[in-house]
Amino acid sequence: MSADTSAPIVPGSMTTGRVRELAGELFAALRSASSDGVGITRASYGAGESAALDIIEAKACALGLPAERDAGANIVVTLEGSDPALPFLACGSHLDSVPQGGNFDGAAGVVAGLIVLAGFRHERVRPRRSVKLYGLRGEESARFGKAYVGSSALFGRLSAADLAMKATDCDRTLGECMRAVGVDIDRVKDGRPLVDRKDFAAWLELHIEQGPVLVARELPVGIVTGIRGNIRHRVVECVGAPGHSGAVPRWLRHDAMFATSELITHLDRHWRALLERGQDLVITTGIVSTDPDEHAIARIPGTLRFSFELRSQSKDTLEAFYDLFLSECRLIGEERGVEFRLDRRLESAPAVMDSAWVARLRAVARGLGLPDEALPSGAGHDAAIFANEGIPSAMIFVRNEHGSHNPNEALALDDFAAGVAIMHNALKEAAA
Amino acid sequence: MSADTSAPIVPGSMTTGRVRELAGELFAALRSASSDGVGITRASYGAGESAALDIIEAKACALGLPAERDAGANIVVTLEGSDPALPFLACGSHLDSVPQGGNFDGAAGVVAGLIVLAGFRHERVRPRRSVKLYGLRGEESARFGKAYVGSSALFGRLSAADLAMKATDCDRTLGECMRAVGVDIDRVKDGRPLVDRKDFAAWLELHIEQGPVLVARELPVGIVTGIRGNIRHRVVECVGAPGHSGAVPRWLRHDAMFATSELITHLDRHWRALLERGQDLVITTGIVSTDPDEHAIARIPGTLRFSFELRSQSKDTLEAFYDLFLSECRLIGEERGVEFRLDRRLESAPAVMDSAWVARLRAVARGLGLPDEALPSGAGHDAAIFANEGIPSAMIFVRNEHGSHNPNEALALDDFAAGVAIMHNALKEAAA
Repeated sequence: MSADTSAPIVPGSMTTGRVRELAGELFAALRSASSDGVGITRASYGAGESAALDIIEAKACALGLPAERDAGANIVVTLEGSDPALPFLACGSHLDSVPQGGNFDGAAGVVAGLIVLAGFRHERVRPRRSVKLYGLRGEESARFGKAYVGSSALFGRLSAADLAMKATDCDRTLGECMRAVGVDIDRVKDGRPLVDRKDFAAWLELHIEQGPVLVARELPVGIVTGIRGNIRHRVVECVGAPGHSGAVPRWLRHDAMFATSELITHLDRHWRALLERGQDLVITTGIVSTDPDEHAIARIPGTLRFSFELRSQSKDTLEAFYDLFLSECRLIGEERGVEFRLDRRLESAPAVMDSAWVARLRAVARGLGLPDEALPSGAGHDAAIFANEGIPSAMIFVRNEHGSHNPNEALALDDFAAGVAIMHNALKEAAA
Repeated sequence: MSADTSAPIVPGSMTTGRVRELAGELFAALRSASSDGVGITRASYGAGESAALDIIEAKACALGLPAERDAGANIVVTLEGSDPALPFLACGSHLDSVPQGGNFDGAAGVVAGLIVLAGFRHERVRPRRSVKLYGLRGEESARFGKAYVGSSALFGRLSAADLAMKATDCDRTLGECMRAVGVDIDRVKDGRPLVDRKDFAAWLELHIEQGPVLVARELPVGIVTGIRGNIRHRVVECVGAPGHSGAVPRWLRHDAMFATSELITHLDRHWRALLERGQDLVITTGIVSTDPDEHAIARIPGTLRFSFELRSQSKDTLEAFYDLFLSECRLIGEERGVEFRLDRRLESAPAVMDSAWVARLRAVARGLGLPDEALPSGAGHDAAIFANEGIPSAMIFVRNEHGSHNPNEALALDDFAAGVAIMHNALKEAAA
């Protein structure tokens, strides 16, 4: 994006300067209302989140846009179309945060949506379809242990067990906290949707990138192709045989660390091969440990425990790589006389972004002279919930330094304005 | 060994049946005096160890062999030679154990020596050189944190800091515990030797194998070529960069576990190559862990800490492999954008067994129709202290199942008798 703040963000609409001014005001207000001394805290269904909704509502009113709370206690701002009976276009993101988090994770998408609607009003655009901005609650898993609670509630996807989850910061349950901020908890309890998914023509979410790809590639924005699903084992245990480190020669060892190292190194090689063939995949062993009750410098480790996670946008890639993983466990196990014992396999399905929307966003970006880089989202987003309900969904990533879930998230307003411009033109085109 | 118990162990000496009978009596007496309900406990400079010395002393007297305590409070049984002014041949091992240990680690060598001297008396052998049996104290590191205290004291090799080490099972220091059992602590304190090493013509130690090699090779005995030294780092820290497990692609990762796995796998390959070239080496990473304060299944591990130990009989092999280790740390560090940070390098020198004695033991074994397999000792032994004092030293290993330092040590009396036969003939030849 040009830094010429007097030019309109797109021909006929607000200037980039005005976009930056509005964004600056809103981000400052959000930060000030939820600062915790280290970062910001807007706990799901808590005070900081509610304060953020109030700020968005007040600004929407000031901009002449009607706002209301829905049955999920989310804020919904509407730009009514000329044919309001048509399925509407929805945009937005979440307003909650992790404790001591950053100001932009989630909020950027809500601020962007509000600025786009304000731009439409400024241009006196009256699209055929209504466009609605959702400021969602309860996306982060930090407070209750489950992510996407707000969007899941919209579609009647919370179980009694979910609602009974205790908050980490007080003695109340998710259900109680939801009720306290005005959620229609009886419908949620019964598994009844709070919205009719057929009313949604699309879901468009702008979000800061939580990884380092856009920074590394020097790109202000990216278009998300899909949200990675995962297969996980919380604990894989490699069981060999302990022994005196000096007295057991290599040919008689069943060393759990050497076996696991070989497993990881082989999987790394398969990973590289799959990437070279264009497949989408990341592998992580985040937790690794020998047994503190018996390990010693002079003892061959008889057991090693590690977590194992695969993520991919493709279910096929996940399953194919998982088979490779099982096969390597077997082969290395046989060769080294160790056994890899797996706990329960956990998984979540990938969500594919709507291909027509991805194409539209990339075309719009090119039309604005912006890069149209397509990239996967490794982190989860509410957009995955919308997509898996069958609603055509899409995401715009904006460059962000230092990752997310920490106070050092860094979003340049020029990059943000670029994302807003893409969102503006794409919604305008789709709603027309 | 034949299980024909009526045949003499060697022509003209005690029958195998008599060897087994004596050994059985002694092992039973030792076990009964130091049983702790789980295994046996003969703490260094403690009651169980002293009881074991008393048992050996009583049996020596009963067999007509004079026994005494030396300035290190060890038991010394002497078969006087016809020329007692000549340097004598010493044999034996240690009588202490780890807590809840096995009955044979150490004690087997003392029992073997006593049976050999008894055999010489039985045969009315009067060698030119005296042969002395040492029942040593304080070999295990379990009680004071330092190994080979008894043999080190003999040669004036204990420091004030060593003597100030606290016992793990009471509030007394090593020095206090040594004094309590009759050690001439003033000489030890001053670093004065308790023996003149020029009086020792050789040191011969029979010991159970603490590794699984003889069991795996189906050999009753082995001849030790050397005692491995080591190079250690208690903590190597691999420092990469943490990140969201879903959001950081492979090309932007600095994953401490993947880097360490590659390091271990490369070192494993170098290890195999060196073994194929006949070098002696073992490598162990006994302790491995990601950082419990920040690790998570969905977080790329930014740091991994592990211990690293090399052991070899050859100082050159140790140094050459250590250079390979440093070089791999550098290469993998550069390639993956991680750093391997090493704490202080610790080391202990290998001890080489006397080649003439190794040749004699192997020839004697062959002469008895026994295998003459040469193998290194990965664990440390008092023999390393004697060897590094310049005393020609040698060791006979006897097959033992289930490793050592546990109640399941398993020594078959036939195997033990085979070791005794080798010791008998070798000492007889050398003392003649």
